[in-house]
Amino acid sequence: MGEFDLIKRYFKRPARHAALGVGDDCALLQPSVGCQLAISSDMLVQGRHFFADVDPFKLGHKALAVNLSDLAACGAKPLAFTLALSLPEVNESWLAAFSAGLLALADAHQCELIGGDTTGGPLNICITVFGEVPVVQGQSQALLRNGAKAGDDLYVSGTVGDARLALDVLLGKLMVPDAVLTTARTRLETPTPRVALGLALRGVASSAIDVSDGLLGDLAHILELSHTGATVWADETIQLIAAYAYSTRARGQFHLDFSATQWRTLALAGGDDYELLFTAPPQQRDAVAAAALRSQTPVHRIGQMDATPGLRVLDAQGHLLPDNFASFDHFA
Amino acid sequence: MGEFDLIKRYFKRPARHAALGVGDDCALLQPSVGCQLAISSDMLVQGRHFFADVDPFKLGHKALAVNLSDLAACGAKPLAFTLALSLPEVNESWLAAFSAGLLALADAHQCELIGGDTTGGPLNICITVFGEVPVVQGQSQALLRNGAKAGDDLYVSGTVGDARLALDVLLGKLMVPDAVLTTARTRLETPTPRVALGLALRGVASSAIDVSDGLLGDLAHILELSHTGATVWADETIQLIAAYAYSTRARGQFHLDFSATQWRTLALAGGDDYELLFTAPPQQRDAVAAAALRSQTPVHRIGQMDATPGLRVLDAQGHLLPDNFASFDHFA
Repeated sequence: MGEFDLIKRYFKRPARHAALGVGDDCALLQPSVGCQLAISSDMLVQGRHFFADVDPFKLGHKALAVNLSDLAACGAKPLAFTLALSLPEVNESWLAAFSAGLLALADAHQCELIGGDTTGGPLNICITVFGEVPVVQGQSQALLRNGAKAGDDLYVSGTVGDARLALDVLLGKLMVPDAVLTTARTRLETPTPRVALGLALRGVASSAIDVSDGLLGDLAHILELSHTGATVWADETIQLIAAYAYSTRARGQFHLDFSATQWRTLALAGGDDYELLFTAPPQQRDAVAAAALRSQTPVHRIGQMDATPGLRVLDAQGHLLPDNFASFDHFA
Repeated sequence: MGEFDLIKRYFKRPARHAALGVGDDCALLQPSVGCQLAISSDMLVQGRHFFADVDPFKLGHKALAVNLSDLAACGAKPLAFTLALSLPEVNESWLAAFSAGLLALADAHQCELIGGDTTGGPLNICITVFGEVPVVQGQSQALLRNGAKAGDDLYVSGTVGDARLALDVLLGKLMVPDAVLTTARTRLETPTPRVALGLALRGVASSAIDVSDGLLGDLAHILELSHTGATVWADETIQLIAAYAYSTRARGQFHLDFSATQWRTLALAGGDDYELLFTAPPQQRDAVAAAALRSQTPVHRIGQMDATPGLRVLDAQGHLLPDNFASFDHFA
């Protein structure tokens, strides 16, 4: 099967939103009147972002999910995406599963595949995603990293740390019962982009980012661009690790013998969570709660923004913890 | 050097057209009022699209050029692009040269880098480019592949075949004098995207495509989408090979002892030319000539579109040649 047959069989579907979809030199896209386009691009490489033997359906899901997560962090509504794919061979069952996983998530977000490229080469998946954000009275409604103010609350959605837990188990660095791995692995392999929450936070959050490299590492980007400091309550964040909650509060079927530092590292530097980390003024607490409810997404207050520059991590007793939670670097 | 330093040092520049450039979860882009966005994505893989030892400045140029060529084929004005880059190592001198070549061409077209991704992995360059096309009275002015009509003239811009000639020499399949290789190699390594011609052909050409996989292979896409046939004058196209013209018409310093079939294969199935192949009604011949003049781009009439389906390739005497000019397939 050649390049054009491959595209036709697995990826070409009729254009819906787009003025022109797959099949010409360019796709044509027109954002709604009064909207600007939000654009993000992520590249996934075998051996670095996923294992060679990963389920291709889940890989298709994740490749788009990490891009939708960037739209979510901007409060953008998904519209469309392009897919560039380098494949070592044309494996039809792999392609069928990959495209099914990809397009299932795309359909769930009404985000259509409008073009791209396929070539031979080491497995590499590059998706560029397009969303739209209203511009109201000349002011973009996009959630940016630069709007946090001292005194703002700091929040994170959903659960954190489980993706890294699963990765460490799969790499043989940790041992956990199968039931724990199964749950954690879902977070690693099929993350949920928080699109609905991002939309609900427009006009509510003062800044936002998605947690891809680790909570503290991603928070550092907000600090840098907002020129603020922050205090993070480490022992609140470890409650958000599903495996921790299950191990300590659930039916007591098992106990994970990790140190406090291990748990905190998972929560604060785990990475691959694709949750939203965001700030909002204290007077917006009800609005944040309403946004969480409306988007059916749990949201947790885990700290606050400070006028004092720098990042402080506190334990449950309010004692300062050493900030040695290394973030994920794709070149480390 | 980590991922963020790398982006900052080599790729981050202040946003100009874009509402928001490199550095947040998404870039923000707003096409001009009354315009739609043209989007194209191309992935370049080492060993398949370029040699491992290619000059990184030229590679930076080519990676963007092949994308701008897709905008040109749609008659779109370049606005911006994203770059996703997978690198086996952080080699600063390579990155400095690559980004210089990339950004020089970007500046020449006022096309700004607004975002992307960097990661470790086998060398892979994925660019997604954005241009704009006016919509006049509800009608997109984009040049598409589906507008050719029987009776239209068939044109190609510039030179063809030289990129393939250079590739074959570099692969050891052909031998040519150094002077020929030098010229041909420029076409392979630093192709010129025909952006100005594409813009000038809006409202003039009835269909267009860029020649990336080979003239006849790319023409087949126009035939398929326009539901027409075509006749191509093979011996007109071989005149467009710079090496052929130099060998036969120039000062007679050298002669290349290729068969007619070899020359025709270079011109008709060479690939990597990044010229525009387009059609226009005969009554537009003056307008095509004016577009060529305005864009300072040579344009040649090389055939015509037919009501009879299929593709006919004629020699200088009007005899039908066997159509066995295989197009480039990235999975072959």
